[in-house]
Amino acid sequence: MNPIAADPSHPRYGSLLRRHLIEEAAAEGLLAGSALIAHGRGEAYDYLLGERTTPSAAKATEEAYARLRTADHPVISVNGNTVALAGRDLLHLAALLSCPVEVNIFYRTQARMDGLIAKMEGWCAEDDLNVDILGRRTDGRIPGLEGPRAQCEAGGIAAADVVLVPLEDGDRCEALVAMGKTVLVVDLNPLSRTARTATVTVVDEVGRVAEALRKHARDALETEPDPEWDNLASLQASLDDIVAHMEHRFA
Amino acid sequence: MNPIAADPSHPRYGSLLRRHLIEEAAAEGLLAGSALIAHGRGEAYDYLLGERTTPSAAKATEEAYARLRTADHPVISVNGNTVALAGRDLLHLAALLSCPVEVNIFYRTQARMDGLIAKMEGWCAEDDLNVDILGRRTDGRIPGLEGPRAQCEAGGIAAADVVLVPLEDGDRCEALVAMGKTVLVVDLNPLSRTARTATVTVVDEVGRVAEALRKHARDALETEPDPEWDNLASLQASLDDIVAHMEHRFA
Repeated sequence: MNPIAADPSHPRYGSLLRRHLIEEAAAEGLLAGSALIAHGRGEAYDYLLGERTTPSAAKATEEAYARLRTADHPVISVNGNTVALAGRDLLHLAALLSCPVEVNIFYRTQARMDGLIAKMEGWCAEDDLNVDILGRRTDGRIPGLEGPRAQCEAGGIAAADVVLVPLEDGDRCEALVAMGKTVLVVDLNPLSRTARTATVTVVDEVGRVAEALRKHARDALETEPDPEWDNLASLQASLDDIVAHMEHRFA
Repeated sequence: MNPIAADPSHPRYGSLLRRHLIEEAAAEGLLAGSALIAHGRGEAYDYLLGERTTPSAAKATEEAYARLRTADHPVISVNGNTVALAGRDLLHLAALLSCPVEVNIFYRTQARMDGLIAKMEGWCAEDDLNVDILGRRTDGRIPGLEGPRAQCEAGGIAAADVVLVPLEDGDRCEALVAMGKTVLVVDLNPLSRTARTATVTVVDEVGRVAEALRKHARDALETEPDPEWDNLASLQASLDDIVAHMEHRFA
């Protein structure tokens, strides 16, 4: 099924369109094999959420935005799926926040790094955005990780006080938190280690989150970070939303 | 991560092993692109179930077995993911039930059909099983479907009174039910159209289900079909299991 040709009023049009974006990025060689499986997991959790932004997710997104806006050295870290699903909106967000974007992928290969950076730079050129795209240098280290996964840019993620890392792996999320950083993640599974470890977790689909963040930046939203932010309470609220959406369907 | 090298006592070893089987089948060209995404969805639902066979799933599997055992012309229909995850156990089940297996895939290409049939025939030879592997002929039709999706074998699925079709698409499940067949499905999402449409739905991972069905056949289980079988009540029980596994995790 080609979602582009499908009816945009189809209730699952958004989900089918996102699947198409992932399949395209895979065909362009931008994704590791496990990326499609990871996207499928996301589809399932989003289905259970009702493929919508819940009130608790909207609140977490505002909190994440407030943290980014008031940071000294914010960095937005993107992997392949994030580029495919939300790359363009995150570039607009970065331009409005004057913050760099770092391409940082779990299974690092030169070909995929080059492809993802070229994709992001192409969008910058098309939309006339002035954003530093980092990721080529590997002069930074994330302590506690092994091999290529520990690599990052010294002037990017390594130097950041606040990092937005949508769709991050549990080990890396823990390692970034252990470095003392404020770690903002997007994860549709409220029970994942990433979701439980981050400073602020948005339980929502990354494309919808990037759109909302971009809108907050465009509207110059002035919310301040909440010093009492309770991330586990926010996760429980998301879980409650999922459970409420599932209960008593056949009774 | 190579799950084969990993510790089998790892709590998620089974799930990682299944992911590996899917990645291998994809590398062998046996799967459509969407198959990896579909597997990811399954992983997410299985995670929410606790990656275990719930009591309601065990009961549904027994009911499915009773229907297969007492059928006049049972057929087991397998697609790419089913072959990768459960093919060998389903062949043993088919041998014990003297029932054919039909390879029937949604996005039909000759290369994938040939590859899947060769895989199944290879296992039959290795394990010395006498099972008819159907799927080469397309002389049958499933009314109500368009194009290659409607194709099946006249002497296989088209003639069957009871069909086990794990991981089936919603349209095809509905069309098979509309033909008056008893349709047995395996689907980890209790809310899917397939799950809601089938005669008997097992909400469990297909590899675990195939193992259990093979065991029932080996043990010559003599359970009779339940004429009062309430599939929606069974689905609600599975949903309750998922909800119970999710609730109050952070409270």
